[in-house]
Amino acid sequence: MLITSSVHKLEAYTPGEQPKSKHVIKLNTNENPYPPSPKCRTVLKNFDIDQLRRYPDPVFMALREEIAKLNSTSTDNVFVGNGSDEILTVAAKSFVENSESIGSLDPSYSLYKTLAAIRDVKWLGFDPRKDKTPKNVSLYLWTNPNAPTGEFAEIKDIAAFAKSFPGVVIVDEAYADFARENAMRLSTSKTNKNIIVMRTFSKSYSLAGLRVGYCVGPKKLIGAMYKVKDSYNVDALAQSLALAAIKDQAWMKKNAAKVIKTRERLTAELLKLGWDVIPSESNFVFAKPAHKKAAVLFEDLKGRHIYVRYFTGPKTADRLRVTIGTDTEINELLKAIHELDN
Amino acid sequence: MLITSSVHKLEAYTPGEQPKSKHVIKLNTNENPYPPSPKCRTVLKNFDIDQLRRYPDPVFMALREEIAKLNSTSTDNVFVGNGSDEILTVAAKSFVENSESIGSLDPSYSLYKTLAAIRDVKWLGFDPRKDKTPKNVSLYLWTNPNAPTGEFAEIKDIAAFAKSFPGVVIVDEAYADFARENAMRLSTSKTNKNIIVMRTFSKSYSLAGLRVGYCVGPKKLIGAMYKVKDSYNVDALAQSLALAAIKDQAWMKKNAAKVIKTRERLTAELLKLGWDVIPSESNFVFAKPAHKKAAVLFEDLKGRHIYVRYFTGPKTADRLRVTIGTDTEINELLKAIHELDN
Repeated sequence: MLITSSVHKLEAYTPGEQPKSKHVIKLNTNENPYPPSPKCRTVLKNFDIDQLRRYPDPVFMALREEIAKLNSTSTDNVFVGNGSDEILTVAAKSFVENSESIGSLDPSYSLYKTLAAIRDVKWLGFDPRKDKTPKNVSLYLWTNPNAPTGEFAEIKDIAAFAKSFPGVVIVDEAYADFARENAMRLSTSKTNKNIIVMRTFSKSYSLAGLRVGYCVGPKKLIGAMYKVKDSYNVDALAQSLALAAIKDQAWMKKNAAKVIKTRERLTAELLKLGWDVIPSESNFVFAKPAHKKAAVLFEDLKGRHIYVRYFTGPKTADRLRVTIGTDTEINELLKAIHELDN
Repeated sequence: MLITSSVHKLEAYTPGEQPKSKHVIKLNTNENPYPPSPKCRTVLKNFDIDQLRRYPDPVFMALREEIAKLNSTSTDNVFVGNGSDEILTVAAKSFVENSESIGSLDPSYSLYKTLAAIRDVKWLGFDPRKDKTPKNVSLYLWTNPNAPTGEFAEIKDIAAFAKSFPGVVIVDEAYADFARENAMRLSTSKTNKNIIVMRTFSKSYSLAGLRVGYCVGPKKLIGAMYKVKDSYNVDALAQSLALAAIKDQAWMKKNAAKVIKTRERLTAELLKLGWDVIPSESNFVFAKPAHKKAAVLFEDLKGRHIYVRYFTGPKTADRLRVTIGTDTEINELLKAIHELDN
């Protein structure tokens, strides 16, 4: 048997569709409808291609310094990955023994189950605010705001759980810039031993195509992650562009504010149409159609070249996850829903 | 214990130094002294930054098609990674059980030992042309031409080994464009069951800063690697630039020919000076100084801002690995050696 037994039985993670046509309204993978900072364009324009002959900085110090500054911490507390994906893979290796398990909310980011399967350990869904922590869980991935629900968990609840939890808590804050609050202060606190907060450039910074994520946590845990990562895991262009993007906080915040405004409008409109909408603090809403089954409406919308996301499974199959697009895109969506959901 | 025991005891891989000053002669990490294809510059100039809002193609189909065409194979036989580093990490997960081992030549690419340690399995150094294959090795990494020696192994020897070997053989051909021949025909052969040939854009294509590597092998093995990889492992810019670079074969070959010419000249000059030089088919030479100890000369050269690579260890400590630079850089090196090695 050339392939390991755990990989043999593995089902690959299915990312949201990336339709090739530009004539679609793409509200299915929580991408930002607004472009990245114009500072990124300048960096790209001025980038000396000859630099690419050389290996990139393996520890991306310039970017780390900026991240540390932004979050009032030190570079020893900052790790950067080839997308949050890589950070999760590295964390699963660094903090989970072969005999241990990974926990998360349920439903949550659907990649987590695949992550556990690739790591060949058990995944357990539980809500620390209600459920007893199962034995042997050594890594808990708390997405906040959660996906696909968009729900926000109180920071004090995360802090309370981490205090009692014997393993590592990663607060996956991919959507934090669209929420009222975040947990960064927990990760940078001097007494913190087991909380890592993770952010991405894919959502609020409009750089999903670039693959850069970062996390902040105790020096010991972050140090372990540096030992596990691939030697040159973030390319030179990605380092430069992410640096330009993170320096332009005003641009990011302006776009996040626009997304939030459109989210509130979409929520109100869907409620008016009789949909059940979970209050969202992210860049998407997770909502149950008033009339049609979610699975049917999903296909009907696709027929009109409007892509939203549908998840099978008992806790998700009655809803659609709709990424917040531009106001024009959301108007198109609402028009289609008017016509289709009856 | 928050950190897994295998990671706790892990020593991180040490990449070659990346001095920040531009006033150094950098012959320490096998980078190409010539720039990447000008087609890459055009791609970068015309790249629409707004595209980066979107996730990249998770299976990099345009790039795969070009790689498949170049190597007369199908896209099902092609995998692309965030550098060969990631391909090795994915392979170690896909083809090695927790109880199995990874083998390679000794000495070879120093990352392999770290790779095995991160995977928490044993690494065993052996030469299939001389040694009996130890039990329980399920992945053999055959670097050809080898690093740090530069030696070329006959393709028929690799084929013979793979035939008898019960696991997967990855032929790491990072330096193949500087060699007389390569093993690609083994990986694309219809009868091939266990040979994967790996290439990189870091050396002959002058794109070390970009982090793109690829491999070609049997569909079943390649399919397993797709299940294990991070969901979006190659960013959109890297996909576009690698595609431009691989399409410009003439540029790559012209630079490789220049490197080979300089390598032959350096080899001849060092031999004249009484050095012991292993015949190299790569973009570096591994050579023993005529007078000084390698470790001493390494530091002396550094004092003159000339960086070469020195590896401790019984099989490597008497030599220096010198990357082939431009003719001007190699002239500077030779001048310094004249003055220092006596």
